[in-house]
Amino acid sequence: MEKINFASKFEQFDELWSPRVIAQMNNYEFKLVKIKDEFVWHSHDHTDEVFVVLKGIINIEFEDRTVELNQGEMLVVPRGEKHKPFAREEAQILLVEPMGVVNTGQVESHLTAKNSQWI
Amino acid sequence: MEKINFASKFEQFDELWSPRVIAQMNNYEFKLVKIKDEFVWHSHDHTDEVFVVLKGIINIEFEDRTVELNQGEMLVVPRGEKHKPFAREEAQILLVEPMGVVNTGQVESHLTAKNSQWI
Repeated sequence: MEKINFASKFEQFDELWSPRVIAQMNNYEFKLVKIKDEFVWHSHDHTDEVFVVLKGIINIEFEDRTVELNQGEMLVVPRGEKHKPFAREEAQILLVEPMGVVNTGQVESHLTAKNSQWI
Repeated sequence: MEKINFASKFEQFDELWSPRVIAQMNNYEFKLVKIKDEFVWHSHDHTDEVFVVLKGIINIEFEDRTVELNQGEMLVVPRGEKHKPFAREEAQILLVEPMGVVNTGQVESHLTAKNSQWI
């Protein structure tokens, strides 16, 4: 049970769109991700997904609208909802979701990341 | 599905030690809390609990040590672990835990707060 400093953790990796697990709470994981440019359209059929912006600005595109999230803002993406995150400049986000969730959902992509990359 | 701005939400209440629910993800709640001075010793026997410091500095006292958390830091308090949060100056925190968790755990106190106070 060690405290976690987001800034120190972000210094430990540079790869974009590659979630790093920093904490587990029950069967949920807290993951840090650096993002820039476009991700892929995808959805998670079995779980909601929380995005918290820790640095920068991100956009989450949905089929009918785009939500811009600034530092200090969060969004719950409902299960099954197709979405595509993007960021014009590199941004740092915190994801909260159950263990085992694949970042690209049901879509296979070069951006599909390995799970359980703890730092 | 609306985005949530932490600062705007914190403007909507002043009461200390009184968690306000800002989001639900599956059966978990995200809660904002303002804290100052001492809470009560308690534990949550059925769940871990996540503390994220959004503003200020808090301390979480355990039976064998005290963890100081600054802005941009988080801690997972394991289920069953007795703890007592305190803050010398008012601080703002984000809690993540399953729906229905009582803030004082098994302890009845004047600080026991009502659940499901959405803002």
